[in-house]
Amino acid sequence: MKVVKTIEELKKHIRDCKKTRKEIGFVPTMGYLHEGHLSLIKYAASENDFVVVSIFVNPTQFGPKEDYAEYPRDLERDISLAEKAGAHMIFAPATSEMYPKGYATFVEVERLTENLCGGSRPGFFRGIATVVTKLFHLVEPNRAYFGQKDAQQAIVIQRMVRDLNMNIEICACPIIRESDGLAMSSRNVYLSSEERHQALSLSQSLFCAKELILNGERDKQIILSDIHQKIASQPLAEIDYIEMVDSENLKEVEQVCGRILIALAVWFGKTRLIDNIFVEV
Amino acid sequence: MKVVKTIEELKKHIRDCKKTRKEIGFVPTMGYLHEGHLSLIKYAASENDFVVVSIFVNPTQFGPKEDYAEYPRDLERDISLAEKAGAHMIFAPATSEMYPKGYATFVEVERLTENLCGGSRPGFFRGIATVVTKLFHLVEPNRAYFGQKDAQQAIVIQRMVRDLNMNIEICACPIIRESDGLAMSSRNVYLSSEERHQALSLSQSLFCAKELILNGERDKQIILSDIHQKIASQPLAEIDYIEMVDSENLKEVEQVCGRILIALAVWFGKTRLIDNIFVEV
Repeated sequence: MKVVKTIEELKKHIRDCKKTRKEIGFVPTMGYLHEGHLSLIKYAASENDFVVVSIFVNPTQFGPKEDYAEYPRDLERDISLAEKAGAHMIFAPATSEMYPKGYATFVEVERLTENLCGGSRPGFFRGIATVVTKLFHLVEPNRAYFGQKDAQQAIVIQRMVRDLNMNIEICACPIIRESDGLAMSSRNVYLSSEERHQALSLSQSLFCAKELILNGERDKQIILSDIHQKIASQPLAEIDYIEMVDSENLKEVEQVCGRILIALAVWFGKTRLIDNIFVEV
Repeated sequence: MKVVKTIEELKKHIRDCKKTRKEIGFVPTMGYLHEGHLSLIKYAASENDFVVVSIFVNPTQFGPKEDYAEYPRDLERDISLAEKAGAHMIFAPATSEMYPKGYATFVEVERLTENLCGGSRPGFFRGIATVVTKLFHLVEPNRAYFGQKDAQQAIVIQRMVRDLNMNIEICACPIIRESDGLAMSSRNVYLSSEERHQALSLSQSLFCAKELILNGERDKQIILSDIHQKIASQPLAEIDYIEMVDSENLKEVEQVCGRILIALAVWFGKTRLIDNIFVEV
């Protein structure tokens, strides 16, 4: 497996792929890979001839008070894990390679980015849309793979690709969870054992909500209150948002019908965790 | 020559070009072609195997009080002119093809768009950067051609292409002028004969400014005042801006040195004309 750090070197390899008509699968990540990322790499390897994984902690998607500096990094471990999962190339550029002096261009997706994580983290999706556009132009993938854990991200990227006429298939892949239900996240390493235990309330309350809906409950307030209560009863949990939205336009739903997304973000100390579930009614 | 109106049809032809390894030259326009556009098409034809000209009056670059509805249009004439100049394909999409329902994504280039036309027309370059990004993804050109008449546009697009890692060469081509010096523009048709006559003050004052500088004048205020006076003495002229900026970062220069751009915009009645000149000191 190749590890490339410069754009020039990456482009050389991509040109070779294009010449030999290899189909490219792409998994953009911020590194510190877990089973969620590895599942994306495996999907990519099963559907493409050549799999590129980018590892880049993207500064433009972090707010000034967020955990950019502390975000966990371990490139050596990531390289080994990605290779085992089927990656053919790692692109791990320096920040100055991606955002050189004088950098000025940003991609914005409106409306879909106003609530949920976009509401809590201004500029977050602008940073993501920008770096993903850059990476798409560099890697020229046929297919790109995103996890449903970041459900809003997958929907925003899908919208961006359609709007900007990018010729790339966006594949949204299922959330990978620990055996007890906690959604895998690079930020889980921040959790103390007590926080880790109380964080189970996120997935458990979402599973219960789905159960409630499938058993006929249609009162949105009852469903959201039930989630709220289960999480708020954990002493270390501080709720950022719990929302029920349309799974396509991400607008808050008034009625529980169609394909809906229930998504939430909760702080445990300095760690912000997200989780979500799709329910079809 | 082919005239295609849908994205699907365009993509089919572009795929064929790519299969046969034809190099694509692209000239994005808003139609109502004049000699300036035709010179771009001729440059493109001389440097590429296949030349695509887009004709699309892009609504997202017009402000609510601007001349979007009245912008001159004549597709039949444009087709004939483009073909004679060497175009192989015209892409003339409907607005709904480019901006379907639910459209939400925009590209913004910061800093370079704050002054000059960007200062006078908020959202103008956001609309241009967005539609050019879309067209670049659709046409997949090797080279794209822009006129220096819109000097700021060429510089903004150059910055965008570099920032977003688009693999496209941007070619900025010289201003084409009427024999009396007026810069060619689709909007010149709006001018009354008196306005047309007084509009000569734009190019004439710019030529004089260059002469002044080449003869040793280094006082920016003297140079700008001279331009201002020559234009303001025309009774129908209403000056929007006259600026002297660095030709790369478009920042206002304090000293007349290096490669500078003197650019101006002037209203004649409801018609806004622009012109500019580069001077190397």
